[in-house]
Amino acid sequence: MHVFEAIRTRRAIKKFDPNYVMSEEEIKQLLSLALEAPTAFNIQHWRFLLVRNPEIRKQIRAAAWDQEQVTDASLLILLCAKLSAWEDRPERYWANATQEARDFILPAIHNYYYGKQQVIRDEVMRSCGLAGQTIMLAAKAMGLDSCPMDGFDYDAVGKIINLPEDHTISFMIVVGKKAQEPHAKPGQLPYQEVVKIDRF
Amino acid sequence: MHVFEAIRTRRAIKKFDPNYVMSEEEIKQLLSLALEAPTAFNIQHWRFLLVRNPEIRKQIRAAAWDQEQVTDASLLILLCAKLSAWEDRPERYWANATQEARDFILPAIHNYYYGKQQVIRDEVMRSCGLAGQTIMLAAKAMGLDSCPMDGFDYDAVGKIINLPEDHTISFMIVVGKKAQEPHAKPGQLPYQEVVKIDRF
Repeated sequence: MHVFEAIRTRRAIKKFDPNYVMSEEEIKQLLSLALEAPTAFNIQHWRFLLVRNPEIRKQIRAAAWDQEQVTDASLLILLCAKLSAWEDRPERYWANATQEARDFILPAIHNYYYGKQQVIRDEVMRSCGLAGQTIMLAAKAMGLDSCPMDGFDYDAVGKIINLPEDHTISFMIVVGKKAQEPHAKPGQLPYQEVVKIDRF
Repeated sequence: MHVFEAIRTRRAIKKFDPNYVMSEEEIKQLLSLALEAPTAFNIQHWRFLLVRNPEIRKQIRAAAWDQEQVTDASLLILLCAKLSAWEDRPERYWANATQEARDFILPAIHNYYYGKQQVIRDEVMRSCGLAGQTIMLAAKAMGLDSCPMDGFDYDAVGKIINLPEDHTISFMIVVGKKAQEPHAKPGQLPYQEVVKIDRF
């Protein structure tokens, strides 16, 4: 599927076919594409948790205002991030670069994040957004649909998935076969309101 | 271009052809595609600032560690967001929905964001990520290249663009024709480290 078509036809789907099963190959393909999304300094701090156990899916649904797509879609992906990734052996993220590049970038990573909790948090939310749209557009190209969700109790879901202390959840995405067409877009702002030139 | 190819060939480009000019039609097409990216509750809080004035581009480059792509790429887009968008006439975001849907969603928006500054901030960072990858993949399909950037002085750039009090900058993206191939990817983590199953 052409990129433009995927962008234009992707919609947040709420009703999924509960009998549709994604193959292991499809899941691997989708996640491998997600891993092509960029992260600042290539720190790859996202952690994609695939919730496959039906019992855990039910628990997460209960923590997500009982939204049926949480259990009915084929795949539930929790887009999490390791907040401390920037300081976890960062030389790995630049293993194939020249020594000169590494000597420049490793101190730059440290200076950019050290002691800056809000900067780190902004970064992981942004990175999960970049990876999330990659997943949703790839799913569309695979003939599948998706729904990005942040309507859930983050603390409750964190407990269910045993989220480590130095990790956070950004949002979740369900992927599967839609069982119902979405409504028309509900009310889009005019181009001029969201696209500005030069200065506010 | 197929979605998979765009995802796999998109790279952060640092060297752009300074003579390549994007047409008005291309710019409009690119931004119109960005507007198809999802936002929670359809609040469309992103604000895309296209910096076209060369003098302002130079000032932003100075505030971005003098990185040449800021002035040499065809287009510089600052992905900003209006933090107060959720409470700015939210009925507009659901104008075409049924009264029943509106009666459900408008109080839900209020309850989700009211008094929750970090939730609002996380949301805009995530939304700008979703829109940013939309832009970068669309650019790729248009035969163009891009670079996502957060290596700049946010306060200094905010002053240059006269950023309103209730707005924030998420990151910036340059778009244009690459003048040099990127290096190989510098060091990708193994699939098993970033993709987890069921629980941490």
